Amino acid sequence: MTYELFYWDGIPGRGEFVRLALEQAGADYIDVARTEGGMGRMMAMMKGKAGTFAPFAPPFLKDGDVVVSHVANILLYLGGRLGLAPKDEAGRLEANGLQLTITDFVGEIHDVHHPIGVSLYYHEQRDEALRRAENFRDQRLPKFLGYFERTLGNGEGQVHAVGGALTYVDLSLFHLLEGLRYAFPKAMQAAEPDYPLLVALNAQVRELPRIKAYLASKRRLAFNEEGIFRHYPELDLPSG
Amino acid sequence: MTYELFYWDGIPGRGEFVRLALEQAGADYIDVARTEGGMGRMMAMMKGKAGTFAPFAPPFLKDGDVVVSHVANILLYLGGRLGLAPKDEAGRLEANGLQLTITDFVGEIHDVHHPIGVSLYYHEQRDEALRRAENFRDQRLPKFLGYFERTLGNGEGQVHAVGGALTYVDLSLFHLLEGLRYAFPKAMQAAEPDYPLLVALNAQVRELPRIKAYLASKRRLAFNEEGIFRHYPELDLPSG
Repeated sequence: MTYELFYWDGIPGRGEFVRLALEQAGADYIDVARTEGGMGRMMAMMKGKAGTFAPFAPPFLKDGDVVVSHVANILLYLGGRLGLAPKDEAGRLEANGLQLTITDFVGEIHDVHHPIGVSLYYHEQRDEALRRAENFRDQRLPKFLGYFERTLGNGEGQVHAVGGALTYVDLSLFHLLEGLRYAFPKAMQAAEPDYPLLVALNAQVRELPRIKAYLASKRRLAFNEEGIFRHYPELDLPSG
Repeated sequence: MTYELFYWDGIPGRGEFVRLALEQAGADYIDVARTEGGMGRMMAMMKGKAGTFAPFAPPFLKDGDVVVSHVANILLYLGGRLGLAPKDEAGRLEANGLQLTITDFVGEIHDVHHPIGVSLYYHEQRDEALRRAENFRDQRLPKFLGYFERTLGNGEGQVHAVGGALTYVDLSLFHLLEGLRYAFPKAMQAAEPDYPLLVALNAQVRELPRIKAYLASKRRLAFNEEGIFRHYPELDLPSG
């Protein structure tokens, strides 16, 4: 069975957390909105015109008759099937809890450039964004990164978030660091020495053969100023 | 086994979504932070000093050795055990997806009064809050309420979000409407005629015998200006 992933074309966005799991598992999947007629199918499903559960927003996954919405829910569903989740219930709950903390952090990262509303352009809320960015860099970035750093353990020379094996949480933490480096290069350059395990995990995931091949492929979309992680230099740490 | 719920004392907050499920099921539970020494235990667990998984933030649930963090994850864990979730996997995934949309909406409702940062007081970000509140009332409130209204079905005279029976999602939608009515009484008075099923579900849940008894008890905390749902009249619809 081919998994169908529904997400906006043109940005890595929230869909990327799902893509990385599918890619690492070598799963058979289609990025529907990037295929001919795919956008129309995605919009029809959200409007409830497909006779299935109607998700509030992308990403969502269709596996036969099952429709799963929200990144953490999709990864919970795929985790066991793709061999990227702990085998025991306690471990799965822990992985889901960590993924939901990543979800919260991603929401905050998005709202740095959209503190007033998603219906407005960035330039219409730039003043508020400047203020939120300062608060984000000073307070939220170290709070979340410090938390994830503490959850990482070193097992047999490898860094993992849950248990002693690779899970979808590790893949998501890899992407989180990639996105933050793109959006806030100066702030991250200053911060990274404080988070050696997160940096090591990022390097480790990047070298996984399937991830390495994926990152070099056309399936991997580049970060840009339409997505979650946007590089607006004025929101980064000031120079000097 | 007694469930231990960890959440800040003094506000309904995010903990309330869990409390409503425990109460409706007549489950044996302790609201730990409201007991003698409970705040210290909660903080120790978050600092990883209890030898368990360390959650990022309350609420979290302890059930023996299992620690579950985040509202949606806790309800996923409790749903089957308390008889408040669909029995089939597709239904459970749908319930979890809806609960995660509620989570996103709750985050946006909170950020109406805190658009710049949680480390700042409301009065320090009041100007930005006024602007965000207008966007919230005009765009986000109808978008989310309209979505939930469309997910509700009428089965045998009863309104339910998933399948034909009461689930934790129904209880959360009850509380969502309660909170919105407290925070934005004028906007909700104007909006409610557009959402007859949400209003009917709210009335139906309020009359469930165990919920009715809970709402009249001291265990139910009143909304106030320390929580998610805050009544600042200037953020509500202007009069006239």
